[in-house]
Amino acid sequence: MYDIIAKKRDGVELSKEEIEFFAKGCTSGEIPDYQVSALLMAIYINGMSDTETFNLTIAMKNSGDVADLTAVEGMTVDKHSTGGVGDKTTMIVVPMAAALGCKMVKMSGRALGHTGGTVDKLESIPGYRSELSKKEIFEITNRIGACMIGHTGNLAPADRKMYGIRDVTATVDSLPLIASSIMSKKLACGSDGILLDVKFGSGALMTDMSDAVSLASEMVKIGKTASKKTIALLTNMDVPLGYAVGNALEVKEAVRVLKGEQKGDLYDICIELTTYLAHISSGLPYAECRRLSAECIDNLTAFEKFKEIISAQGGDTSVIDDTSKLPLARYQYEIKAERSGYIAHMNTQEIGMISMSLGAGRAVKEDKIDYTAGIIISKKTGDFVNVGDTIAILHTNNESKIYEAVMKYNLAVTCSEVKPELQPLIYDVVK
Amino acid sequence: MYDIIAKKRDGVELSKEEIEFFAKGCTSGEIPDYQVSALLMAIYINGMSDTETFNLTIAMKNSGDVADLTAVEGMTVDKHSTGGVGDKTTMIVVPMAAALGCKMVKMSGRALGHTGGTVDKLESIPGYRSELSKKEIFEITNRIGACMIGHTGNLAPADRKMYGIRDVTATVDSLPLIASSIMSKKLACGSDGILLDVKFGSGALMTDMSDAVSLASEMVKIGKTASKKTIALLTNMDVPLGYAVGNALEVKEAVRVLKGEQKGDLYDICIELTTYLAHISSGLPYAECRRLSAECIDNLTAFEKFKEIISAQGGDTSVIDDTSKLPLARYQYEIKAERSGYIAHMNTQEIGMISMSLGAGRAVKEDKIDYTAGIIISKKTGDFVNVGDTIAILHTNNESKIYEAVMKYNLAVTCSEVKPELQPLIYDVVK
Repeated sequence: MYDIIAKKRDGVELSKEEIEFFAKGCTSGEIPDYQVSALLMAIYINGMSDTETFNLTIAMKNSGDVADLTAVEGMTVDKHSTGGVGDKTTMIVVPMAAALGCKMVKMSGRALGHTGGTVDKLESIPGYRSELSKKEIFEITNRIGACMIGHTGNLAPADRKMYGIRDVTATVDSLPLIASSIMSKKLACGSDGILLDVKFGSGALMTDMSDAVSLASEMVKIGKTASKKTIALLTNMDVPLGYAVGNALEVKEAVRVLKGEQKGDLYDICIELTTYLAHISSGLPYAECRRLSAECIDNLTAFEKFKEIISAQGGDTSVIDDTSKLPLARYQYEIKAERSGYIAHMNTQEIGMISMSLGAGRAVKEDKIDYTAGIIISKKTGDFVNVGDTIAILHTNNESKIYEAVMKYNLAVTCSEVKPELQPLIYDVVK
Repeated sequence: MYDIIAKKRDGVELSKEEIEFFAKGCTSGEIPDYQVSALLMAIYINGMSDTETFNLTIAMKNSGDVADLTAVEGMTVDKHSTGGVGDKTTMIVVPMAAALGCKMVKMSGRALGHTGGTVDKLESIPGYRSELSKKEIFEITNRIGACMIGHTGNLAPADRKMYGIRDVTATVDSLPLIASSIMSKKLACGSDGILLDVKFGSGALMTDMSDAVSLASEMVKIGKTASKKTIALLTNMDVPLGYAVGNALEVKEAVRVLKGEQKGDLYDICIELTTYLAHISSGLPYAECRRLSAECIDNLTAFEKFKEIISAQGGDTSVIDDTSKLPLARYQYEIKAERSGYIAHMNTQEIGMISMSLGAGRAVKEDKIDYTAGIIISKKTGDFVNVGDTIAILHTNNESKIYEAVMKYNLAVTCSEVKPELQPLIYDVVK
């Protein structure tokens, strides 16, 4: 290990064997943390070649369980978002893609910090089970086309170990380390095709667009080298996606989109994501896939798929048919505009943190989630507001959190007399 | 700590307060090892400014005990060698300097790896105590001019902790880290003036001469910024110093030099070192100090001082008057030249390792030393040898080690038909 550290320190490329040795020793604990962190810092400063990044990805993938999806008939596809605020696309896109014939065993994470987690959102539906047996996973996916579950097995433990150390040694935002971390887990999920939604802006991991482009390219390279059809979309996360932030609130909004009752940014991005999933899966041209994506909303086949999946996983579909049956928070506090003007900018990460403070998320892994808590955003960047207009409604069961949340929300939203120029939602596609 | 790591990672200069925070937290263990190693790697790759290096030196010095030598009358001077093979200069130079009126509380280390330790060498003299009470230290130094002891107190624990981590994370050979490590300990020893003997060549820490020059400059800068008169000599350690390697063997050789019976490289370097110590201490011109240095050997005042010091520290001076009374190893194995020619090169570090394997040193701190073990080098670089000439005599009590030692010694010494060009012993002086 000493020699490996010295090599990377001096900017020399590490061999496949050396990287495997590192990933193995890191997982087993045979390599002490202080050697892991020294190497990670050398990688942070001196970078990694494409070959090194690929080899690290594979070594981390192989450090744990790798899902075997051969029991699923047909080509499997997967979607991964680098995470944002109000990002409920998975709940919408998975049934849409299933309606178009895609096969998806979609594993998602839980909320942490300012970002939500699809598994928590779905668990706000009474009865919904995010843990399924292998048998159930294959049966449901073959019958309906998709299931939506939590991460199963011991996925890329080398990545988990490394991330823990990176988090406390200022080595998180290294492009090759982020790319290999995400892709090691995606590859361990075992699908044949991968669609990446790489977000940038004030609510994303990458605040800078050019960094997001580099990350997307790096990940697509890794996916292709691993012989997976891989496409990345670069999408804007400068503004929360849709209007709802918080678990049950987001389920309601997802249902509205699936029923064709809500258009706008969330609908647009779901159409685009589904289009590419179908394109990867079927090989049909983009335009045809796009037409089919819009159609599955209009003819409610995606909405029916959503109910089928929920039902197959034990969820109560009556709350989907009538979302007013979903539980509601005791307090709904309307935040009013303090002055007139255009909303010029929203600090989206901060809005995620406010939602968390109301009970919708977790500051640390052990925190419990209040499914009813969150924020309904009434006015978004570019909207004009008059003094006294409602700009957001805070939902919470913890009255004591409201005052601070209002203060923070007002600070997170900037007004201007000039209408701001809106950024495109989908910036680029990396194939 | 996270922010400090991130700053240095990005090449930003750390403030005095940040460096102090690091040194304190490192010593107390409040900063975990993996954060220490991440910062050390960032320092290794991105370097440190002179100000940062100085602040780190002072912070490490202040992490432990700092010797207070005000009880010694007059200006105190200290000498430090970066370490080599057969470097017994301390035993010779300290009594010489004392004979010239210098005041020295000389603290030395113990043998580890290929380098010997002055304390071990002196302890081969029966009765010699390397641990003295503060009262004894001041009494002996005021009366005789010098004492030679082991490191007392808890000297620069921050450096010890950091070195432990550097040693296993490939961050040892960083110039600012080496310079601050050495100087933190030297400054903690509390003398008013410091003479540094920075060695380079195959038996030294710095094998490369230009690195040694940079290290010397860095350390002199630190010493001066700390308001200490500081001078560094750059001396050659491509060949073992003198002829003896091993504890009692080196004491015998030191006595020969002190009695004026042996000239050559060891004598020359001792004259030079004493000259600069006297120059720092008295302010007299170099030429005058040099004359006095030679004189104290010729008139045996240095030899008498040596006996006074040994006697004051409980040592049996009869073995100094008659060194044949010093214990001798059971086996003396003569290595004969296998072919004729000039000795072109000696792998001096390897010779140090061979001496260690015969019992003269320690592979790990816990090893016990055999004072009688070592090597008498009969022929050195530049000497002509005929087949069958004795080139070295191995001394050991462990017969089983001889075979391997002979093999290794023959590999460590390279012969040539051409007389090699000899490098100057003293390369430069940095003031």
